[in-house]
Amino acid sequence: MSFSGDSPEDSQSAIMAATYTALCEHGYAALSMAKIADELTMSKSSLYYHYDDKDDLLSTFLGYVIEEFATDVSVVEEQDANAQLRAFFDRVLPRDLDESGYEFHVVLLELRAQAPHHESFREQFDRIDGLLKETIAGFIETGIEQGQFRAVDPNETARLLVALIRGGRVDRVSRSDRSLGELRDALDAYLDSHLLA
Amino acid sequence: MSFSGDSPEDSQSAIMAATYTALCEHGYAALSMAKIADELTMSKSSLYYHYDDKDDLLSTFLGYVIEEFATDVSVVEEQDANAQLRAFFDRVLPRDLDESGYEFHVVLLELRAQAPHHESFREQFDRIDGLLKETIAGFIETGIEQGQFRAVDPNETARLLVALIRGGRVDRVSRSDRSLGELRDALDAYLDSHLLA
Repeated sequence: MSFSGDSPEDSQSAIMAATYTALCEHGYAALSMAKIADELTMSKSSLYYHYDDKDDLLSTFLGYVIEEFATDVSVVEEQDANAQLRAFFDRVLPRDLDESGYEFHVVLLELRAQAPHHESFREQFDRIDGLLKETIAGFIETGIEQGQFRAVDPNETARLLVALIRGGRVDRVSRSDRSLGELRDALDAYLDSHLLA
Repeated sequence: MSFSGDSPEDSQSAIMAATYTALCEHGYAALSMAKIADELTMSKSSLYYHYDDKDDLLSTFLGYVIEEFATDVSVVEEQDANAQLRAFFDRVLPRDLDESGYEFHVVLLELRAQAPHHESFREQFDRIDGLLKETIAGFIETGIEQGQFRAVDPNETARLLVALIRGGRVDRVSRSDRSLGELRDALDAYLDSHLLA
């Protein structure tokens, strides 16, 4: 996750970066508008000018994560659908993850766990998972057109793969073993047997 | 989830029930030993006699959930492995879930999200996921022996299915649509094509 840009510190990008830093440091429950403002050279009241409350800000933060993800996914450069799909999984479900990536997944899981209590969070996760599913189904459709993949149901297969991505990402941060090597082997075997023509 | 029994109120079973009630009501962050004691006719100091702190109690609670789950799974009565496996998924990943089941999954997700910060929670989730994997791999091995299933790698397939269960359960409580009908269709199609001989 990066929050780069040349924009002034009162820009949304800087507020998002501050929100992320404060979330990593304090966790959801202890997070407050004051603690986010502390990460900026901005008063709490200025922050309230932009956002109603912490949950409004966090919902915007999730929207920001989606935009970053959509940009990230759009730069997959491989030409054939099979290579695209594998490169996609290397991004969203890498076998191993560096510390900053791990920390980001910890924060996202904490926000997922808050979703039952916040409709605006659920709506953002609907968007994230919808985008994931659409992207995967697109790779599969292309692969079928290119003759690389068998004529499976792209949406059904994508639905299963989205749940698998979610599960793998939750596994990584909630169990002792952070590596997803075994799961990625199982996933690759599944893609080979289910998809390859 | 049930916390039944004829045991006296100071028994572990009653403490686990009180922990669950307090977790549902207050969530992890606001939970305290005092709030759990409030659900019992027990003083906070008596509760500290049994448990070091809230996280010690919650780690025990997760262990209790595992025991209940193990008992629950052991009563799957179907004779052939294919029927056993489908009945198992009806239990752990039903298409629809009643309100009390939903509430239980919300609580479990909140504890998963705390796992990165608590080694004892991670150890319990290791046990839960290990038990899930072992159970599924057992059904697959039996099905292969019975000639119902193809000679797939039981552990690899079970690893994928555990991630899929995890993902589906997280999906249910973190998105707008609580039904897993589409995912279960995809899962059934996968089991048909990957496993059936």
